[in-house]
Amino acid sequence: MSVARWKPNARERLSQAALDLFAERGYEATTVIDIAQRAGLGKTTFFRHFQDKREVLFGDGTLDALIAKMIAAAPPDASPLDAMAGALDALGQHSFTAARRGFIVRRQAVIAANPELREREALKNLGLTASMSKALMERGVPEVTARVTAELGALASRIAYERWSQPTSGEDFSTALRLALDEVLAV
Amino acid sequence: MSVARWKPNARERLSQAALDLFAERGYEATTVIDIAQRAGLGKTTFFRHFQDKREVLFGDGTLDALIAKMIAAAPPDASPLDAMAGALDALGQHSFTAARRGFIVRRQAVIAANPELREREALKNLGLTASMSKALMERGVPEVTARVTAELGALASRIAYERWSQPTSGEDFSTALRLALDEVLAV
Repeated sequence: MSVARWKPNARERLSQAALDLFAERGYEATTVIDIAQRAGLGKTTFFRHFQDKREVLFGDGTLDALIAKMIAAAPPDASPLDAMAGALDALGQHSFTAARRGFIVRRQAVIAANPELREREALKNLGLTASMSKALMERGVPEVTARVTAELGALASRIAYERWSQPTSGEDFSTALRLALDEVLAV
Repeated sequence: MSVARWKPNARERLSQAALDLFAERGYEATTVIDIAQRAGLGKTTFFRHFQDKREVLFGDGTLDALIAKMIAAAPPDASPLDAMAGALDALGQHSFTAARRGFIVRRQAVIAANPELREREALKNLGLTASMSKALMERGVPEVTARVTAELGALASRIAYERWSQPTSGEDFSTALRLALDEVLAV
């Protein structure tokens, strides 16, 4: 029925097209139709994958589900901190690969330049922290401990991301994350 | 020149009118013109105070400035944690008063029900945390310490707010904040 049936990876192609257009013309001047056309898809396909224009630069909740799964899968005797650190590392290996670095850094620059996108990102990050905290509570971790652990983990990830995304950084994300977690916990 | 000249507290009246209308008709169904009319003001006055409809439920950056000022004003030998705790307490006494509680609780319910408002709030909260962290760095606190302190302070404030805003809570905000900070730091 739909064009998308013959065009695999519609989601990724829409994100890539959007990022190119936002960089070329600016976020405001780009429409959903522009993005769909650039990706060789229709507007209907766009809205099957994303609820609005902002959403095209964000994931579909896979990360939240992944991190919750990893926290649940940590050994029963792992401390809240170890469960979280393992999950963040898995997340990093899934998302912040060397191959995706160019895309991620460009994406971050576009987000930083647009208040609407920064708002959406802020809410997504809240959601990710809430998922970690909930997954820890489901392991029997008390609420305040779970929330503190999740906040510190989120902060360490942001610091690791900032360093990893520097043009001069030679570190992989796992290393950057381990260092950032150590520094955060030392405080 | 403007209508607002004869009508004091335009900002507060617009926020109050907006909150009433959002509760009555829903956020989506309320326009900026509706809000201005209900407040007995014009659209131009609205946009003199707020950049868009979302903004009407949020402050004008006074809180960020207040908290930065309080952190800067802490005694030179105060620890980062004490500087932050004092500032958060001042913020609470400024914002979370018994007289404003009804307004604040209704406002929070409206925000929780609307993704657009939750996004704006998430970004505002990021800004507040960044202001605390920056003010701490200006006291000579190292960056990672400043960021950890600010995140933990922000988390303690959220926990204190959640408890204070419960209908059954008899605590004032200062007490709730002190307890929440103790619990967060005990982790």
